[in-house]
Amino acid sequence: MKKRILSGMRPTGKLHLGNYLGALENWVQLQKEYENFHMVADWHTLTTNYTDLSNLKQNTIDMVIDWLCAGINPVQSPIFIQSHVIEHAELHLIFSMLITVSRLERNPTVKEQARDLGLENTMSYGHLGYPVLQAADILIYRAHVVPVGEDQVPHVEITREIARRFNYVYQAEVFPEPEAKLTSFGRLPGLDGNRMSKSAGNTINLSDSPEVIAKRVMTAVTDPQKIRRGDPGRPEVCTIFTYHKKFNPAEIPVIEQDCRAGKLGCVACKRNLAAKLADYLAPFREKRAYYEAHLDEVAAIIEDGTKRARKEAQKTMALVREKMNFGY
Amino acid sequence: MKKRILSGMRPTGKLHLGNYLGALENWVQLQKEYENFHMVADWHTLTTNYTDLSNLKQNTIDMVIDWLCAGINPVQSPIFIQSHVIEHAELHLIFSMLITVSRLERNPTVKEQARDLGLENTMSYGHLGYPVLQAADILIYRAHVVPVGEDQVPHVEITREIARRFNYVYQAEVFPEPEAKLTSFGRLPGLDGNRMSKSAGNTINLSDSPEVIAKRVMTAVTDPQKIRRGDPGRPEVCTIFTYHKKFNPAEIPVIEQDCRAGKLGCVACKRNLAAKLADYLAPFREKRAYYEAHLDEVAAIIEDGTKRARKEAQKTMALVREKMNFGY
Repeated sequence: MKKRILSGMRPTGKLHLGNYLGALENWVQLQKEYENFHMVADWHTLTTNYTDLSNLKQNTIDMVIDWLCAGINPVQSPIFIQSHVIEHAELHLIFSMLITVSRLERNPTVKEQARDLGLENTMSYGHLGYPVLQAADILIYRAHVVPVGEDQVPHVEITREIARRFNYVYQAEVFPEPEAKLTSFGRLPGLDGNRMSKSAGNTINLSDSPEVIAKRVMTAVTDPQKIRRGDPGRPEVCTIFTYHKKFNPAEIPVIEQDCRAGKLGCVACKRNLAAKLADYLAPFREKRAYYEAHLDEVAAIIEDGTKRARKEAQKTMALVREKMNFGY
Repeated sequence: MKKRILSGMRPTGKLHLGNYLGALENWVQLQKEYENFHMVADWHTLTTNYTDLSNLKQNTIDMVIDWLCAGINPVQSPIFIQSHVIEHAELHLIFSMLITVSRLERNPTVKEQARDLGLENTMSYGHLGYPVLQAADILIYRAHVVPVGEDQVPHVEITREIARRFNYVYQAEVFPEPEAKLTSFGRLPGLDGNRMSKSAGNTINLSDSPEVIAKRVMTAVTDPQKIRRGDPGRPEVCTIFTYHKKFNPAEIPVIEQDCRAGKLGCVACKRNLAAKLADYLAPFREKRAYYEAHLDEVAAIIEDGTKRARKEAQKTMALVREKMNFGY
């Protein structure tokens, strides 16, 4: 029997290259080896923004289309919406009794996030507890593995603690202790050299047209000391060069040599990259055109995946209720 | 249209006179004026004890039988089990985003409870948040009124804040701001003069037989200065006298006079009370005998009540999801 994986993303809309290389590409690979569940983590959105959810549905559809374009196979690996499997909330409530407030307050990731968002004194109760919700998300599918970034490792540790605690208290091997699987590829920087993120406006989306890609690439930061076309450049400080390494590896020796020699101007170099990126993303665009013309199919995929996820979640909850003596 | 009430008790098993006079008697009265929902608050049990739930089902049945014996009319006022209406957990999760950690930490009742239980440093996340679960319990039925003791008033205030916050953020009048309705009758002391509670072993249960009542009453604390039968007594410091005031008001003048004059011994006075209590509780015992012989009927009452509660909860959640944009 294949081991299980639970993967999730908050519904932020159309995904960018950073999302793809940092997570989604990995998910697609993992499908071959594992039984995967792919979750649109809409309840998690509430931890940092609950006041304006007007884009929630469109963002969900846009993100799911990107998942499909990237190669998530919904027949093999259900795609579902967290808030439509309300058993997650039930398990979250039960787990909330199995962990102390002080344990959650020691969690470095939530602390940092609260500081970054200026929420230290106004952190919501749900925000503090979002690792508990994550534990429910993972354990309700009795997943063995969770693909995460470095910053999420402390949360998987909380999940493991809760699983152990439940199994110990109720004398039952209901939950495995899931392992964090770190994404192998490091982050692709945004066009300005900083972390790629939607809010920073430094992204290239998987769905961008060649024209948009070309425009976006032109805004990228290169070596600030290379001012004129003929100036020698330093590829090691150039964002565009980082992109070439990923999307145009064959030409790397020539680009490096010509840039250092002052024989390659940034505009030409960017045009070259834009063309390569447009090629790289062509299959995404093609698939998106199909799904955007068949939104009913996308809705049916989500509905089917949610049904299948719910069935598994209900199986686990029947077991949880029985072991706790909450059963009917 | 009648206003709505949500009332709940943790399933502690057979109820005692303190539960009856402090809450249940009030519930029975309120049925006439309001549309009432009566909840077995089993998830709340987890906040202070989640490790041994072996008596949960028996405790639930025993408590519900006492509700029925006391006069709760399940046709008019559904009796349901909280954990069997999982929408409570969903609303709890949503509400957990609408209140800050620091607001919950300022709550005096939870603080005191934690101190009493020696849980200050090991308080669970769910224990800190139990007023949030209460808010969900109340508001999922869009109740207007909550009958509570003095110590629960701060929780109803939290419920009101959450209702206001939700209505404001989602620009929708989904929830009323429920009002706390204080129980009019003060607490009946336990047989030792302290607060009546199961764990203190100073109770008389609604279901106790005349023999048990007589034995229990004999253990009661009277005036410690009245040692011999002929000693004069002080009714104002006597627990038994407090009970006479409630259960034997007609004889109060005679008892007071004879006690003060040293004409009434404690044993005779206790026997008299025990007989009055046995009479008072006779209808409870009769009804209990019926329900214990018809446990299927009790199960059917709970099932029917849970179905009706679930239907109302689902109506509210459909509205909540729609207003938040979480809908299907």
